[in-house]
Amino acid sequence: MGSEGLSYAAAGVDIEAYQRVLERVKPLIAATHGKDVAVGVGPFAGLYKLPGGGHLAASADGVGTKIKVAIAAGRHRGIGVDIVNHCVNDIATAGARPLFFLDYFATGRLDPDVFTQLIEGMTGACREAGCALLGGETAEMPGMYALGDYDLAGFIVGMVEPGAHRAPIKAGDVLIGLPSSGLHTNGYSLVRKVFEDVPPSRAFPELGRPLEDVLLEPHRSYLEELTHFRWKGAAHITGGGILGNLPRCLPEGLGAHLKKAAWEVPPIFELIRKRGRVADDEMYGTFNMGLGMILVVDPGDVPDGARIVGEVVRHTGPDRVVIR
Amino acid sequence: MGSEGLSYAAAGVDIEAYQRVLERVKPLIAATHGKDVAVGVGPFAGLYKLPGGGHLAASADGVGTKIKVAIAAGRHRGIGVDIVNHCVNDIATAGARPLFFLDYFATGRLDPDVFTQLIEGMTGACREAGCALLGGETAEMPGMYALGDYDLAGFIVGMVEPGAHRAPIKAGDVLIGLPSSGLHTNGYSLVRKVFEDVPPSRAFPELGRPLEDVLLEPHRSYLEELTHFRWKGAAHITGGGILGNLPRCLPEGLGAHLKKAAWEVPPIFELIRKRGRVADDEMYGTFNMGLGMILVVDPGDVPDGARIVGEVVRHTGPDRVVIR
Repeated sequence: MGSEGLSYAAAGVDIEAYQRVLERVKPLIAATHGKDVAVGVGPFAGLYKLPGGGHLAASADGVGTKIKVAIAAGRHRGIGVDIVNHCVNDIATAGARPLFFLDYFATGRLDPDVFTQLIEGMTGACREAGCALLGGETAEMPGMYALGDYDLAGFIVGMVEPGAHRAPIKAGDVLIGLPSSGLHTNGYSLVRKVFEDVPPSRAFPELGRPLEDVLLEPHRSYLEELTHFRWKGAAHITGGGILGNLPRCLPEGLGAHLKKAAWEVPPIFELIRKRGRVADDEMYGTFNMGLGMILVVDPGDVPDGARIVGEVVRHTGPDRVVIR
Repeated sequence: MGSEGLSYAAAGVDIEAYQRVLERVKPLIAATHGKDVAVGVGPFAGLYKLPGGGHLAASADGVGTKIKVAIAAGRHRGIGVDIVNHCVNDIATAGARPLFFLDYFATGRLDPDVFTQLIEGMTGACREAGCALLGGETAEMPGMYALGDYDLAGFIVGMVEPGAHRAPIKAGDVLIGLPSSGLHTNGYSLVRKVFEDVPPSRAFPELGRPLEDVLLEPHRSYLEELTHFRWKGAAHITGGGILGNLPRCLPEGLGAHLKKAAWEVPPIFELIRKRGRVADDEMYGTFNMGLGMILVVDPGDVPDGARIVGEVVRHTGPDRVVIR
């Protein structure tokens, strides 16, 4: 580590470069959209109108370099859970019930044990979500993946029932944070830099268990918890952290104020911040910081015991999310 | 190259090992299937019953190491076409009309030009197929992919209209071969071994154009052509070649006899066979050999000018497909 703190871009991931090229290709993508596409690329799920009423919600996701941590530890079951729950949460933000999931598994040379662990994780999470593992592709690509390496992507389709309606989001609505189980599936390229000189089995006192156990904690599903709230909007806090994802569920002209003191940031994030001397904006723009899902709720609908973390505000200009 | 000819397994791809582990995990996958799953893992597409009637057909696919050829040539647009048409053809075998497609693109560091070319290819093929590019995931995974490398996967969902019915396949039905545009997206790990000592720009006399042009020819779509025939079954000839894929559309107790003389094998396959001293079984068990789709048709429904390549026969034991 040099004298400056670590950032996601310095760890080799440039989200802004991606945003620029995405702007360039958006017209090409829009040209494929007929009248049946309700929501295209951008939010957490794409929505497609069904002739019989209702919508299909679909999402594609990866697990990112969390896979590298799993490979080092030789533990892959949780990666299977990760990819399914990441997908389930994405379409849950559209109010969708999962119907089926498909996976794409690519590797240099198929390791039957790794593959079996992944399938165990995926099928377990699919059963939890009431979702069929309907198919998948397994690709052996010698020369593309180094020995022992693999990649795993997932694709989910869910159903948004006809007549599902949510009241419009307005200034004064309340933000409720749902706790994450850990880093979920984001920020691992930065995390791996931060801990590159640390044996993954080290138990930091503030974590109370081995680092790799904390890093490999599976991405939790919010499917059931989202039925406990009457909510207007939901942001799944994935790549881009709270700063990047919360605006995705807010209409134009609205922003969010969050209170830092409103929730306790889990020790792993503090450890990452300190060891990597990572700036605060970088932390909140990369990680979920303990909130894996943030819901927008009418002040009259806040249930007892809900963790209120902020509110929706009128907004113009940059910095749509302010955390103080 | 040693004294023995090349095989797909020797090139680093072991389809049999995959089949063995798939048998092991099948019960786990089946346990995720409720009554709404009409066809699970195995055929070209998974089918899911819609409450309003009809089925959704879904498939996940990759492009494999054809990507390595594209990277060497710096030409990526066709890879975008490949992944969409591979998916379109898979669900077309179930009689499905494509609704939407999602992609998964993973790389070490995003190259805007590569990404743009891929999106151009994918959106072009989506428009041709009347299919919306509904979403996707772009993952930068430094440390997983070497500089310049990437992987691309696709997921498609289509609609099989209610009441679609096909007569059962029986012995005596006719096999009609639809021409391929080249290798499509299969066998490239073997092909790359065969030509590893050849500059990709070399124009072999029997090809009449540079090798890389032939190898990068995009996977064609059979969507429209499949509406010209009244057919009972369709096999998309992908990984596993004719020997591996034709049986997938045949019911138990039936096999296929194909006549070699019935179609002309394109020069690229002859060149691969000769240079790699690849056994005949290996060729027909790896490549499409000029037939990218094989249809099962009632003898009374064969249209004028159709290329009849064989027939369905009663069968027991191994070798369900015999090519003479």
